Amino acid sequence: MRPHPIVTFTSDFGTREYYVGAVKGAVLSACPQAHIVDISHDVGAHDLLEGAFTLFGAYSAFPTKTVHLVVIDPGVGSQRRAIIAVTENHFFVAPDNGVLSLVFEREEVSRVVAIQAEHYFSQPVAPTFHGRDIFGPIAGHLARGISAATFGPTVTDFVKLSLPAPRKVGAGEVEGIVLHIDRFGNVITNLSTSGIQAAVGDGTPTRFRAGKASIDRFVTYYAEAGPNELVGLIGSSGFYEIAALKKPAARLLEVKRGSPVRLKVG
Amino acid sequence: MRPHPIVTFTSDFGTREYYVGAVKGAVLSACPQAHIVDISHDVGAHDLLEGAFTLFGAYSAFPTKTVHLVVIDPGVGSQRRAIIAVTENHFFVAPDNGVLSLVFEREEVSRVVAIQAEHYFSQPVAPTFHGRDIFGPIAGHLARGISAATFGPTVTDFVKLSLPAPRKVGAGEVEGIVLHIDRFGNVITNLSTSGIQAAVGDGTPTRFRAGKASIDRFVTYYAEAGPNELVGLIGSSGFYEIAALKKPAARLLEVKRGSPVRLKVG
Amino acid sequence: MRPHPIVTFTSDFGTREYYVGAVKGAVLSACPQAHIVDISHDVGAHDLLEGAFTLFGAYSAFPTKTVHLVVIDPGVGSQRRAIIAVTENHFFVAPDNGVLSLVFEREEVSRVVAIQAEHYFSQPVAPTFHGRDIFGPIAGHLARGISAATFGPTVTDFVKLSLPAPRKVGAGEVEGIVLHIDRFGNVITNLSTSGIQAAVGDGTPTRFRAGKASIDRFVTYYAEAGPNELVGLIGSSGFYEIAALKKPAARLLEVKRGSPVRLKVG
Repeated sequence: MRPHPIVTFTSDFGTREYYVGAVKGAVLSACPQAHIVDISHDVGAHDLLEGAFTLFGAYSAFPTKTVHLVVIDPGVGSQRRAIIAVTENHFFVAPDNGVLSLVFEREEVSRVVAIQAEHYFSQPVAPTFHGRDIFGPIAGHLARGISAATFGPTVTDFVKLSLPAPRKVGAGEVEGIVLHIDRFGNVITNLSTSGIQAAVGDGTPTRFRAGKASIDRFVTYYAEAGPNELVGLIGSSGFYEIAALKKPAARLLEVKRGSPVRLKVG
Repeated sequence: MRPHPIVTFTSDFGTREYYVGAVKGAVLSACPQAHIVDISHDVGAHDLLEGAFTLFGAYSAFPTKTVHLVVIDPGVGSQRRAIIAVTENHFFVAPDNGVLSLVFEREEVSRVVAIQAEHYFSQPVAPTFHGRDIFGPIAGHLARGISAATFGPTVTDFVKLSLPAPRKVGAGEVEGIVLHIDRFGNVITNLSTSGIQAAVGDGTPTRFRAGKASIDRFVTYYAEAGPNELVGLIGSSGFYEIAALKKPAARLLEVKRGSPVRLKVG
Repeated sequence: MRPHPIVTFTSDFGTREYYVGAVKGAVLSACPQAHIVDISHDVGAHDLLEGAFTLFGAYSAFPTKTVHLVVIDPGVGSQRRAIIAVTENHFFVAPDNGVLSLVFEREEVSRVVAIQAEHYFSQPVAPTFHGRDIFGPIAGHLARGISAATFGPTVTDFVKLSLPAPRKVGAGEVEGIVLHIDRFGNVITNLSTSGIQAAVGDGTPTRFRAGKASIDRFVTYYAEAGPNELVGLIGSSGFYEIAALKKPAARLLEVKRGSPVRLKVG
């Protein structure tokens, strides 16, 4: 038994429904000493990419042996599998629908298990709510210290989303997309230092183009921007973003998620 | 002292106010080792029926001896009582205004106590915030293992809302209402298998009528629906609902909470 | 090591981002046994005054030795300091930008420390996310029982916002402002009993003026108001507020945050 088992929980259930509460109850019924930590339940409904990004930004801050429960599950009840992914430091419990894709990109995964051990489920299993009846109990049992291999066979053909990759569009210029717009209106792209380097080689960013704007100033923190100035910077998840001083850059730029952005390095 | 006391918390306080935090502080001041688990604080303001439904969907997933704190309390400060309801597996702490009605329908209640032991309150009691000064402390003391009977006399005349019941409207046809529309737009009715049986006897659902639509297909999980198809199914709280594939069925149907629905069984 | 360390968390991160989760992970990496309690993450973006008010309403309900983590930090990455404020019963960890001003008004502060001990930070420190890399870890180490003085030198020139104070505008009449409008539409002013007394001396409130309305009835709890009646009362944080029966008083009054209000005492 671990001394302080931690289970994080990410979903698209929203915070008005009973769904989040019921899943937490199921986790605690399996592991009453677990500390359940909400990451977000406001991921867009059925939005696997947003769920993947939200989890990606948060999971690595948690202590070793944390169990990360992710329930964004449009295929609940169908033949899609339920999986446990084991990495050096963490456990992930989720439907096998690609929501762990960004974890798979960054982490070395030591094992992925297809969950089959039905006697750990909460019976009868409702075909519409595996979060409560399968994922929650399994996360709780993992948190208690039960080995992942107990829950089913190892699989290798788990689902990975084909994520949009930065691509070279000219000498020293890379094209990406807006991956996320955050609460402050910061425009977070899918361009990381390593992604840019893979596409166009070494270099320092000199110009961002997004919407109708061209952004020539790169800073290290938000408050360096002048009034109404748009600036580029590396955000806390390692991706380049565009920001403005206490204003939503996304609105100034008139971009939305998925909009193309270009970054020139020199 | 219980080893891992759990207190769930459901309210209509919203998540922007200090109210939720203050209540949690009061629980922890009475029971520092309690694990407080949010069910929802986005229940509609003063909406006892929504609060009852939210609690109903979540409480039974929690371990034995969980304390469920429910603060939807438009009559705060008035003569309405504060109560503790004790069932075989759970404790409930709430104003005596009917918000526990659905629990009372499903659970055998072994005792309801009118909270009167003022020395357990946080003094002085603010007439506008019993959540912080009465309900929170009592929930904490219950979680610590203090007996419910310590807090006041047993009462039997606690408030139950008269909930809309399914009623027979023709041979094998039952009328109910839309009880809730969830974040995904699923239309949850007040028609359960037992409620239907009580109204019109045994049978298998064959047709739902809601808004202008007639729904003839019943499935077991959401992803069985075809594009733009409306389907009926039994949801995770035991009520029939109407859903569509990754679309809000409520919008397709143009129904809202309280709208009538009819279900035919054959 | 404290037996049940509690860390509250207030921010303007919203609940859709990964930011809240990442900070919690950082707290738990420093102190795996901490119980993290959300106060609110829906404070308006960069809104120091709202953050100060939210914290103010909640912190004092928590047990002795609670660590209150507050991350509303528009100046993240700049030269603004990070501080720990120590009072008789609580610890506060926040940027030195005035967000603790209301705590400083009410509490006797025994020490304010400028956080400098970089070996307690999560390295490398992202210039855009001190919540995760500085404030979270420090809150965790404080919760573990590390002394505040360990983290840096004592300072006395910490930032206090100049908060709007009640002022006398006539015989027995005081002017204040709308400090906050809560989820129920209650209009919370900055007028407390002590603030009124300091401005115009002893007396009992007899008339509120706000928007176009004049309110002559003062009650002790919300349900005393009649249908469509506006009433004055002392709210749970000690400030006078204007309320209506199950209706948003703010909408009836057509006031918003910052609107002037006048209170006459006699």
